[in-house]
Amino acid sequence: MSKLNPKKVLAFHRKLNGKIETIPKYPIKNRKDLTMIYTPGVGIISSHIAKHKDEARNFTIKKNSVAVISDGSAVLGLGNIGPEAALPVMEGKAVIFKTFAGIDAYPIVLNAKEPHDIIAAVKAIAPTFGAINLEDIAAPKCFQIEERLRKELHIPVLHDDQWGTSVVVLAGLINALKLAGNKIDTARIVISGAGAAGSAIVKIFRKYGARRMLVVDRLGIIYKNRPGNSPDKDELAGMTNPRDEMGLLSDAMAGADVFIGVSSAGLVNAEMVRSMAGKAIVFALANPTPEILPPEAKKAGAFIAASGRSDFPNQLNNALSFPGIFRGALDRGIRAFTPEMLIAAAENLAALVKYPTPDRIIPSIFDKGVVKAVAKAIK
Amino acid sequence: MSKLNPKKVLAFHRKLNGKIETIPKYPIKNRKDLTMIYTPGVGIISSHIAKHKDEARNFTIKKNSVAVISDGSAVLGLGNIGPEAALPVMEGKAVIFKTFAGIDAYPIVLNAKEPHDIIAAVKAIAPTFGAINLEDIAAPKCFQIEERLRKELHIPVLHDDQWGTSVVVLAGLINALKLAGNKIDTARIVISGAGAAGSAIVKIFRKYGARRMLVVDRLGIIYKNRPGNSPDKDELAGMTNPRDEMGLLSDAMAGADVFIGVSSAGLVNAEMVRSMAGKAIVFALANPTPEILPPEAKKAGAFIAASGRSDFPNQLNNALSFPGIFRGALDRGIRAFTPEMLIAAAENLAALVKYPTPDRIIPSIFDKGVVKAVAKAIK
Repeated sequence: MSKLNPKKVLAFHRKLNGKIETIPKYPIKNRKDLTMIYTPGVGIISSHIAKHKDEARNFTIKKNSVAVISDGSAVLGLGNIGPEAALPVMEGKAVIFKTFAGIDAYPIVLNAKEPHDIIAAVKAIAPTFGAINLEDIAAPKCFQIEERLRKELHIPVLHDDQWGTSVVVLAGLINALKLAGNKIDTARIVISGAGAAGSAIVKIFRKYGARRMLVVDRLGIIYKNRPGNSPDKDELAGMTNPRDEMGLLSDAMAGADVFIGVSSAGLVNAEMVRSMAGKAIVFALANPTPEILPPEAKKAGAFIAASGRSDFPNQLNNALSFPGIFRGALDRGIRAFTPEMLIAAAENLAALVKYPTPDRIIPSIFDKGVVKAVAKAIK
Repeated sequence: MSKLNPKKVLAFHRKLNGKIETIPKYPIKNRKDLTMIYTPGVGIISSHIAKHKDEARNFTIKKNSVAVISDGSAVLGLGNIGPEAALPVMEGKAVIFKTFAGIDAYPIVLNAKEPHDIIAAVKAIAPTFGAINLEDIAAPKCFQIEERLRKELHIPVLHDDQWGTSVVVLAGLINALKLAGNKIDTARIVISGAGAAGSAIVKIFRKYGARRMLVVDRLGIIYKNRPGNSPDKDELAGMTNPRDEMGLLSDAMAGADVFIGVSSAGLVNAEMVRSMAGKAIVFALANPTPEILPPEAKKAGAFIAASGRSDFPNQLNNALSFPGIFRGALDRGIRAFTPEMLIAAAENLAALVKYPTPDRIIPSIFDKGVVKAVAKAIK
């Protein structure tokens, strides 16, 4: 991780006092401009949209706008810190949306906790936007919220912690397996973490052909009818672990080809990496401190190591996917995202690295072509 | 009204495709910028705000942001045209907020009709913003919505159709009465229209000392216990019409000193203006077509005529008040607006015209000093 001086970071943000601003596309210089932009001119546009509701896309911010919405219940590695404290993250995402994909993103943090209230608030404000990016909402409520909104809204909805993350992880895995000479359907894959990211990774991996997966949470390997399983965990068990294996993370990792960590700092030690199969792939993505630091994983024998951090090779960050996913969605006016679109986005992202190496399985966020390649898949 | 060619206006807005955009204040050029703006740097800000919630104002968009919120139930002269069709108007207001007062305004249109749902949605998104501008919400639900939000939110809430309008009308009346040699407490004032604007004008006029007011709606002069009166109308009757006068608009206007129209196109004819007292003041503010055109009012003997239009002298437009009202509110971090603040804003606005004449009772929106003068009053 880059050495960040907390005092400097605070001073920087205090001076900025908000990371985005709303700027008129056409400046008002005189009374004539005012009659065009505001009354009476704007009445002509409102009348037109009143008669043809779909035309809102052609005459308003709707066509190029994404709401970045959070209740602040699962922010970064910080947990349930509430809406005000989540706002800086949503603003940061808005900066990335505009910088990399030209999308006007509106950070909206919600003073609402219950799924019903969050769903109602998002549905209420939806007419303003072309798409909805749910962000940093805790599992398991995030599943229910996303599902209901997808069904009930006419614009695409994506919980980025689930799908943005899983697209980038799949892209990295495609290149990593190629280098390791392994295949998704035979590889033994361990996923540590059964929250928003872990669940979505299981779903997209399965759709892509993975057949030998184990998911591990705080209580160990998840198996069907494990005492205390929520419906979500039983669903995960059904999609993985066909032989009802039990045990700890270390048991699951013994002999595994792939480790995907979307859990907590330091859960994995060198011994556990050493117990994996040859040409082991270790994606330790807990943020900001991974399950195991990539150099340690490599030292313990991992063939490929990746993390979410910018100070090691192979940064798997969802900033690689969400700008392009929403760019494609807005440009093509799609109504909903499908697993097929997301898999195609991962394939396009992986294919951008023409000659992958163990230290370069994924493009850089700053590579030209990332947003375009991902966007192409969303159709 | 400026001659606007509807085809040209449509083409202009189609090309613009949204009147505002969200722009990063600090561009991301490299990985170091990214770690400052987004993870891991932003985590330091989120942690800080999680510990000190009030600090959100100093580190996020909150301090300089206003949500411009409408359900689209009473848009311009167009009525209940719904959220999508209201969006261009909210965007236009956002442009004015930024152009004249440097405020970052976020247009939000709501797919919600019932007061309870509108209140819930606004409360849910409130942590994002420094203040709330309610806009184009129909009477009488606008009264209940504003009142509840004022009580339940910790940021200032203003329904601009009520208070922004009444500030500008009071400012105009202060100078008009001065020129006519009349006084607010003795002037006979007729208000045509008992919606959002009419009700607020009665309340602010009364607070400013008006004692001889009559309010007229579609059924004629409003008096206490008039059959079919809503509670709001009975409240209005209680604040006006002490002698329970009855009759039509023409009856109310006979002998009146001041006519304030916030009703419908063409309701007033030359005969009605002729029936008013000497040095009559006629503010015909229905938009885009006033109750009577200012030149006709003058021809019929009005001493001063004003409208909401830019093609006649004395344009009484709430764009004169709302940018300054919210600028003051954000700068001073007030929790709620009071009638005293709004009256002071009207006085400051009136005082900007050093030498009023019958054709110049109010400053131009483009006059330097308007926003500052209004903002000074909000403390």
